[in-house]
Amino acid sequence: MKEFRIIELKEGILERNDEAARSLREKLEQENTLLLNLMGSPGAGKTTFLLKTIEALKDEIGIAVMEADIDSDVDAKAISQTGVKVIQLHTGGMCHLDAEMTRQGIEGLGAEGAGIIFLENVGNLVCPAEFDTGAHKNVMILSVPEGDDKPLKYPLMFQTSDVLIISKCDALSVFDFDIETCIARAKKHNPNIEIFTVSAKTDQGMDGWIDWLRSETR
Amino acid sequence: MKEFRIIELKEGILERNDEAARSLREKLEQENTLLLNLMGSPGAGKTTFLLKTIEALKDEIGIAVMEADIDSDVDAKAISQTGVKVIQLHTGGMCHLDAEMTRQGIEGLGAEGAGIIFLENVGNLVCPAEFDTGAHKNVMILSVPEGDDKPLKYPLMFQTSDVLIISKCDALSVFDFDIETCIARAKKHNPNIEIFTVSAKTDQGMDGWIDWLRSETR
Repeated sequence: MKEFRIIELKEGILERNDEAARSLREKLEQENTLLLNLMGSPGAGKTTFLLKTIEALKDEIGIAVMEADIDSDVDAKAISQTGVKVIQLHTGGMCHLDAEMTRQGIEGLGAEGAGIIFLENVGNLVCPAEFDTGAHKNVMILSVPEGDDKPLKYPLMFQTSDVLIISKCDALSVFDFDIETCIARAKKHNPNIEIFTVSAKTDQGMDGWIDWLRSETR
Repeated sequence: MKEFRIIELKEGILERNDEAARSLREKLEQENTLLLNLMGSPGAGKTTFLLKTIEALKDEIGIAVMEADIDSDVDAKAISQTGVKVIQLHTGGMCHLDAEMTRQGIEGLGAEGAGIIFLENVGNLVCPAEFDTGAHKNVMILSVPEGDDKPLKYPLMFQTSDVLIISKCDALSVFDFDIETCIARAKKHNPNIEIFTVSAKTDQGMDGWIDWLRSETR
C-alpha cells in the first residue's frame, strides 16, 4: 500500500484567487501553521532540498508536504521515506498552483496541527510566480547549473519570492556561475530578499536556512 | 548601436493557433526555410548549444535566430557575436510562444533565404509544449543536472518533441543521472524521438546532431 494519496486538482476562478489566498493564509495563521511555497525550475533540486530540511527539523516541528506535478508520484514517494505526512497533487497539465488548488491539497493532506506545510510547486520559473497560493512566504530555488543570468530573464519570480536558495553550490567548480553577480541581480528586483547559498548534497549552508525556518515558526 | 532588434510580441487568438501554425509552416516550406523550435528548462543550456551549432554550420547553411524571453537581451547579445541574424523577442510575461508570435518574430527578423531559423522558446518545460509555433520540428534540451526523472513529470514536452538533446553530459560524473533510464522513459512517451547526448562545452556528441540538421535541410 502507498503511504500517501494522490489527488487530482481543479483550478479555481482566477478573479477570486487573491481573496481565496488571503482567506487560506488567515485560516492557517489561526491554526499556527506556516505555509511555504517552494518554486524553481524543473530539476533545481527542490525535493532533495526539502528532504534535507525535513531531516533537520522533523523532531522539532511538525512538518507536512504537498508535492505538485503534472504527472508521476516520484517526489511524494521520496518524501514519504522521511515519515512525514505527504500528498501528491496532480495539476491536470496546469503549469502552476492557485489558492483553491492549494486549499484542496491541504484538505486532502489532513495535516492539522502541523507547524510547517511545504508546498512544492510545479517546476517552472514563469507561471507559479503569477498566482498567490495562500502561502505565508514564497521560497525560490535557483541551482548553480542554471546560470547566474536567471534574475535578468525571470524577473517576476525574483520579485515575488521572500527567500532565494542558491542550490547545488557543490557544483560551482564545474559551471560558470558568479554568486555575487547573481545576488546583485536578484537584489535589484527585490532588495529585501533573504538569500542562502546551499548544497543539499554536502549540507553546506543548510544551517542558515534551518535557523531562518525556526525563527519563522516562533 | 545594437546589432539586433528587440520586439514586444502580441499573443494570437488561441482557437486559431493550429491554423496559423499550419499556414506559417507551409509558407516557410515554400521558401525552403526549416523552422526549429528549441525548448527546455531555464538554464538547460539552450543558448550555448545554439552557439556551437551555429559555429559548426554557418559557413554551410544560412542561419537566423529568434531569442524569446520574458525580459532581458542577454541571449540575443550572445548569438549576435556569431554574426548571424538574430532578434530578441519579449513575450510580455507570457510563458510560451504561439504561432502568431512566431510569425511576428520572423517578420521582424527579416531572414529571407535563411536555410534554418531557430526559435529559442521561453525556458519552461510545461507551457511551450502546448502551443504549435509553426515550427517544422520541435527540439527539446534536457540537461544532466535536471535529473533523469523529467520524462515522468513533464510528459507532454517529451510527446511533442521530435528531438531530445541530453545536454551538459560533461557533468555526468557530478550528478546522479542515468542516460539509459532517461532514454527509456522518454521513449515510453515517444518511441520515435531522435536522441543526441551532447556537451556543448567539450563538443562531445555534437557531430551527430549537426549531421541530423544537415539531413533535414537537404
